Amino acid sequence: MSRPGADQPVDSRVVARLVALALDEDLGPGDVTSNVCVPAGIEAVGEFLAKDSGVLSGLYVAAECFRQVDPAVRWEPLLHEGDCFAEGSLLARVEGPARSLLSAERVALNFLQRLCGIATLTRQYVQAVAATQCRILDTRKTTPGLRVLEKAAIRAGGGHNHRLGLYDGYLIKDNHIVAAGGVAAALRAVRDFAPPTAAIEVEVQDLDQLEEALVAGADVVMLDNMSPAEVTEAIRRIGGRARVEVSGSITPEAAGEYARAGADFLSAGRLTHSFRAVDISLELRSHEDTVR
Amino acid sequence: MSRPGADQPVDSRVVARLVALALDEDLGPGDVTSNVCVPAGIEAVGEFLAKDSGVLSGLYVAAECFRQVDPAVRWEPLLHEGDCFAEGSLLARVEGPARSLLSAERVALNFLQRLCGIATLTRQYVQAVAATQCRILDTRKTTPGLRVLEKAAIRAGGGHNHRLGLYDGYLIKDNHIVAAGGVAAALRAVRDFAPPTAAIEVEVQDLDQLEEALVAGADVVMLDNMSPAEVTEAIRRIGGRARVEVSGSITPEAAGEYARAGADFLSAGRLTHSFRAVDISLELRSHEDTVR
Amino acid sequence: MSRPGADQPVDSRVVARLVALALDEDLGPGDVTSNVCVPAGIEAVGEFLAKDSGVLSGLYVAAECFRQVDPAVRWEPLLHEGDCFAEGSLLARVEGPARSLLSAERVALNFLQRLCGIATLTRQYVQAVAATQCRILDTRKTTPGLRVLEKAAIRAGGGHNHRLGLYDGYLIKDNHIVAAGGVAAALRAVRDFAPPTAAIEVEVQDLDQLEEALVAGADVVMLDNMSPAEVTEAIRRIGGRARVEVSGSITPEAAGEYARAGADFLSAGRLTHSFRAVDISLELRSHEDTVR
Amino acid sequence: MSRPGADQPVDSRVVARLVALALDEDLGPGDVTSNVCVPAGIEAVGEFLAKDSGVLSGLYVAAECFRQVDPAVRWEPLLHEGDCFAEGSLLARVEGPARSLLSAERVALNFLQRLCGIATLTRQYVQAVAATQCRILDTRKTTPGLRVLEKAAIRAGGGHNHRLGLYDGYLIKDNHIVAAGGVAAALRAVRDFAPPTAAIEVEVQDLDQLEEALVAGADVVMLDNMSPAEVTEAIRRIGGRARVEVSGSITPEAAGEYARAGADFLSAGRLTHSFRAVDISLELRSHEDTVR
Amino acid sequence: MSRPGADQPVDSRVVARLVALALDEDLGPGDVTSNVCVPAGIEAVGEFLAKDSGVLSGLYVAAECFRQVDPAVRWEPLLHEGDCFAEGSLLARVEGPARSLLSAERVALNFLQRLCGIATLTRQYVQAVAATQCRILDTRKTTPGLRVLEKAAIRAGGGHNHRLGLYDGYLIKDNHIVAAGGVAAALRAVRDFAPPTAAIEVEVQDLDQLEEALVAGADVVMLDNMSPAEVTEAIRRIGGRARVEVSGSITPEAAGEYARAGADFLSAGRLTHSFRAVDISLELRSHEDTVR
Amino acid sequence: MSRPGADQPVDSRVVARLVALALDEDLGPGDVTSNVCVPAGIEAVGEFLAKDSGVLSGLYVAAECFRQVDPAVRWEPLLHEGDCFAEGSLLARVEGPARSLLSAERVALNFLQRLCGIATLTRQYVQAVAATQCRILDTRKTTPGLRVLEKAAIRAGGGHNHRLGLYDGYLIKDNHIVAAGGVAAALRAVRDFAPPTAAIEVEVQDLDQLEEALVAGADVVMLDNMSPAEVTEAIRRIGGRARVEVSGSITPEAAGEYARAGADFLSAGRLTHSFRAVDISLELRSHEDTVR
Repeated sequence: MSRPGADQPVDSRVVARLVALALDEDLGPGDVTSNVCVPAGIEAVGEFLAKDSGVLSGLYVAAECFRQVDPAVRWEPLLHEGDCFAEGSLLARVEGPARSLLSAERVALNFLQRLCGIATLTRQYVQAVAATQCRILDTRKTTPGLRVLEKAAIRAGGGHNHRLGLYDGYLIKDNHIVAAGGVAAALRAVRDFAPPTAAIEVEVQDLDQLEEALVAGADVVMLDNMSPAEVTEAIRRIGGRARVEVSGSITPEAAGEYARAGADFLSAGRLTHSFRAVDISLELRSHEDTVR
Repeated sequence: MSRPGADQPVDSRVVARLVALALDEDLGPGDVTSNVCVPAGIEAVGEFLAKDSGVLSGLYVAAECFRQVDPAVRWEPLLHEGDCFAEGSLLARVEGPARSLLSAERVALNFLQRLCGIATLTRQYVQAVAATQCRILDTRKTTPGLRVLEKAAIRAGGGHNHRLGLYDGYLIKDNHIVAAGGVAAALRAVRDFAPPTAAIEVEVQDLDQLEEALVAGADVVMLDNMSPAEVTEAIRRIGGRARVEVSGSITPEAAGEYARAGADFLSAGRLTHSFRAVDISLELRSHEDTVR
Repeated sequence: MSRPGADQPVDSRVVARLVALALDEDLGPGDVTSNVCVPAGIEAVGEFLAKDSGVLSGLYVAAECFRQVDPAVRWEPLLHEGDCFAEGSLLARVEGPARSLLSAERVALNFLQRLCGIATLTRQYVQAVAATQCRILDTRKTTPGLRVLEKAAIRAGGGHNHRLGLYDGYLIKDNHIVAAGGVAAALRAVRDFAPPTAAIEVEVQDLDQLEEALVAGADVVMLDNMSPAEVTEAIRRIGGRARVEVSGSITPEAAGEYARAGADFLSAGRLTHSFRAVDISLELRSHEDTVR
Repeated sequence: MSRPGADQPVDSRVVARLVALALDEDLGPGDVTSNVCVPAGIEAVGEFLAKDSGVLSGLYVAAECFRQVDPAVRWEPLLHEGDCFAEGSLLARVEGPARSLLSAERVALNFLQRLCGIATLTRQYVQAVAATQCRILDTRKTTPGLRVLEKAAIRAGGGHNHRLGLYDGYLIKDNHIVAAGGVAAALRAVRDFAPPTAAIEVEVQDLDQLEEALVAGADVVMLDNMSPAEVTEAIRRIGGRARVEVSGSITPEAAGEYARAGADFLSAGRLTHSFRAVDISLELRSHEDTVR
Repeated sequence: MSRPGADQPVDSRVVARLVALALDEDLGPGDVTSNVCVPAGIEAVGEFLAKDSGVLSGLYVAAECFRQVDPAVRWEPLLHEGDCFAEGSLLARVEGPARSLLSAERVALNFLQRLCGIATLTRQYVQAVAATQCRILDTRKTTPGLRVLEKAAIRAGGGHNHRLGLYDGYLIKDNHIVAAGGVAAALRAVRDFAPPTAAIEVEVQDLDQLEEALVAGADVVMLDNMSPAEVTEAIRRIGGRARVEVSGSITPEAAGEYARAGADFLSAGRLTHSFRAVDISLELRSHEDTVR
Repeated sequence: MSRPGADQPVDSRVVARLVALALDEDLGPGDVTSNVCVPAGIEAVGEFLAKDSGVLSGLYVAAECFRQVDPAVRWEPLLHEGDCFAEGSLLARVEGPARSLLSAERVALNFLQRLCGIATLTRQYVQAVAATQCRILDTRKTTPGLRVLEKAAIRAGGGHNHRLGLYDGYLIKDNHIVAAGGVAAALRAVRDFAPPTAAIEVEVQDLDQLEEALVAGADVVMLDNMSPAEVTEAIRRIGGRARVEVSGSITPEAAGEYARAGADFLSAGRLTHSFRAVDISLELRSHEDTVR
């Protein structure tokens, strides 16, 4: 399911900044143990070993960690963004000054294990809805600072992205409706302001609100916290007048049922706030022991 | 278990920078929906409602989110860092321009839910070892960019912190030993370099390495991936010559047994890489409906 | 046409950063002439005087210039963002240490004169299409670094904003179509990737391309470099299947004819790249001469 | 009139920062349309085509835009900073991944068109005074954030630069004189403070002030808002005691007359606040169609 | 010799940045000892005590250190920038949370001791030339990153500043002359480029070079590494055609003789590279012990 | 005494940032004299010449200065970090565009002269204690912003580093003890908080405090402002229960006596606040004159 050319799914300038912050955090003024114990001339080779099965995301970030610590490190990815891997798989190989490998190791793994965790969980949802047209979407419930990476992991898992932030998509929620004085007023205000390239989504809690939103011209409606049966009924009433997103604490197990109810999109916050990091380690060997 | 005065456990300059990055990420050039739908003059009040039980950490970060979006927002914490809370508890109250509350809401929750998740999981470990002298420690397996906040959450949960990064503690691992040509050489190199305020920790895989490390003068030894029985035997041999940390995929369930084996410290990566976010929501009401 | 509450149309954190860069540029390590000639204790009052008629935009930026140079400066706006003003009008009043007023003056004016220039030119287009439903849109041909301010000036003039950048709107142009292998392929690729909140726009050069784009499901079509007559014919064929933007070196004089041809949107690069700065000066008087 | 070696007239570290800000603004987290429509492997070639005649400035900035987006892009300038070009001229050629060319195109043009606009207008003034010793100077009425680039464009057009900002030149204006208690006091204060490498300029409004400034020892006097006849008379009185700058809304048409009156320098704010962007486009072709 | 109003001699925005960097360096993620030992509620008072005599510079920087660590700290300066103080003098008083005073103490002193050292040494030179018209100048041999502060300390000591950097003054040295093909060519190039507000200085090694520089029109000449007698002869030949700076490892003891030889300016690198820090300590007392 | 591999003793990312700030400070928007006088094509060669004897530190910083100004400059170090050099020694050679060498020269020297000054002074202390086990330590009395470089210079001189800042070492001073309510309470609080890798140091003023600190379990004691005789007595009483640091205005002359009294560590603030810059110059020759 990996797409060709997708191995650098995030602008390299953005990746570079995030990695620099993370290295600053862990290295500060320097890796005191490695700089003292490990002579500058020692070379080593390391392999990223999966201790769990999963879906790959984030090798491009790990690569940048080593590159920033030491441009002399060679990096060889062994799988592609979005690939499935089994327990025991090798994901990538690094080679270079041992000191540099040791200094970058933890930060690289901290990124990689989390992003693989997100991709792996996303894949579960995607497989649950595979027989339908329904797409799995992420939310804004991402880790502060890491959103673009996490959104790329969602795509690696086969999911799709919702808006990037509050600035690039119009989603009218309950509180907006109350403050604006009703769905119609809120939609009119947004329609008057939004650029031509914007479609407008409205969150609805029940069938009355749904009808109001449709009459007011919503392009997309989000059905929040409804049962699959309620979703089926809502979609019947919508009758193609808007696209439909369902949302609200939906587990991978329940995803298929919602998808079969006819939802175009299914979004789940847990994709980015309650995933489990995939266990990956960097196995280092000093250079002379390495057999190729 | 909350400490008095501990409600701002992280330097405010550091918090301010992390919040600024997170707001930039979510708000970019502006919250287009709220700015258009919600008139500038509308006031609202919001309450942070726990939909799960847990241990509190991070209100101070949430407060900063609102403060940066709009200094006019009033913030009232209702519980302290480190407090336990039941499902249904109110954690804090915000009041101010509705537009500002809506713009800051998601980022504040993204921080708060994660930090409470870490504090809550830490508390489980702490309770498992409560009858012993053993302390629960974190690791460097933290979310890139958020380490100081996550380490504060560990403390809120009753845990203790290991070193902050590669720069402020000397921990000699396998690869350092190989590169340095043995435990004794590695320890000597570090001892020669480290400041007087440093104690030196050595990771050991078996009893032979343990003896070597003790002879070479390690201040702390880390017993990695040993069974409780092996730990008991190791501690018997150490006989007080060094303090003892045990590590390696230890679950909360197993923690007590390790602690009773006599370990001084027990560290667990999952505290920061495999916690579950606590479900918390911000319940907003427009101002006029609010009865106090 | 000024909207209530619209006097701070850009997020204050964004304004603060742009002003800081501009002050750094002009002040560097300090205003050597004023700091030497003007005693620290001298107070002065200044009035922003329009030496031309125009439409106001940017007082909120000018205010931030003075605030950053010296928080002790008092600022009183006399008109609102979007207001028309005649030659000789007073736009705002500042009062405070003379040294601070002198140091901030030029940067404040450099912002204000340009933003008023954009708002004023936009108003000409808006008036030219006033009898129609057509909206005036900006483009990405903005001054590097100042886009959000210039887009706010467009709104102050009565125009509307197109997408903010390459990241928040899908606009398929010629080169995209060629590279993707046709309109249908390009639209399919975008539709598969874009979030639910995106509408997709396609630029077309002739009626054949137009039909292709409509069949492929474009939400908006941009008719580039067509005559009003061609636009009329194109809109007839579109028959409501998509919204219509016209573009391509359209002067204020020609705008009305295009609007009457039925375009929903009319965009003009010259709004931001070929406006004329409005002549505004800051008239300073030393405090004692000031009569209130 | 182009100087050899002048093709990188601004420190590359400064250019890199300005370009980075401008790319951030336009690209944000990424060019969503190009990244989706245009396969990563497609190469293209593009030519910068002048659709107007003018004077060249800013190719070095455009080159940096492409370099930052993608170091794999090849860049070939076809003319030099300061060269005149006719309508239809090719200014530069780029070649590389189509996606990268599309992503950098608009920002590169936004810089280039403006800088050529400034150089072109400057050249008009320079030609108007060509038969005299008079030099054309810029002012501080530059676009916030872009001053060093705009000052380079002035030089490309054959003009000269006045001070860079408030920090590197002593120019005593009306308000300084009032605050200091007269020309003599202001000059004395500045002379006492300024480094040996500073010459001091005083702005004068009439012949009385002029005499005062000369007596007080001004190195340069700025005659503000005087007619050519008044300038002639002023210069007669100055009699070589100071160098002379004339200023104040002088059009290109009037410049010659002021120059012939004997001014050493003539400064015009409109060079940087009321220029017209030169129309330049980037003509892209997919690689296979390109004939060399 | 302190000037009224001179107690904030450096733009507060610049001071704030330098202090932030210095605090980051010393505090990093936090003052671990104080945060743990000192309860948050304890107040203390501290006095800056001079253990040496000297000239004061830098209280404004010390104040900013405390302000950034904790806005709740009260700061009371007891002397002015440029004041002389005797051993045992109190320079300023701080009062606030003990934890905050302890955290900011060292950084504040690190700035203050150095800046007083520079001011004190400068005063020695100034007194040595007091009977003449000669001014003491600094050089660019300042501590990397702290130049504007050190230049303010020079002024506090009674000295004057030379140019701020390579960007704001034209000083033609040996190597420039060689590269340009002679003094006349170098001066012509600079005169053609420099703004009207620039005076041009030329460094000369002997009397031949001096004559060349004068003929070419240098505004200032720098006599490098000449004896007082050579300076006397040089000044006789200059005969008022240029102002004169002498330079080259001149001690405070020799300064008077050079000044009496008629130099307008005397510059000394040691003012900023070989000063001795003045011994100052912060005497803290817990609040209850403090008698006012 | 230079260690192999020690020629880049500071993380290159950290060096790059410090150099960038220093170049910004000196170059600002550009080196106006060199850019105008020196044709872009002229090559030159330069040699760093010691005009004093000393101990080398900081060539790696000087190299970075040239690299940032112009990547085309070639850099050849002739000695190693920590090497002794005699007056007249050549330390390094640079070769490249003359303009670039001139622009980077002063900043490179400003770093190099200071760092050599620190290394040279440190070596004096180290030699004074050479016959003992005592180590020379630095303090936090470093130049704001340059601490990591100065600490590397200490090592180049043969000294050792104390903690980097307030964040990476626990040192309990007088004021901490008072605020905590005694040595025992302070030590207990720190021991409870500090990571396993921390040893705890306590500053003591007299023998009573010393005994208290030892009983409370201090790992290191700092004897402040004691005479050598008092130190001898204190060490007798300590009897190996803790390591011993002596501190307090100790001159190089007195260092030996303290060391012979049995101190493990001797720290001196003057190493970084009262060193003398070593006189080093960059001798430039235009390329054609250079004989190899």
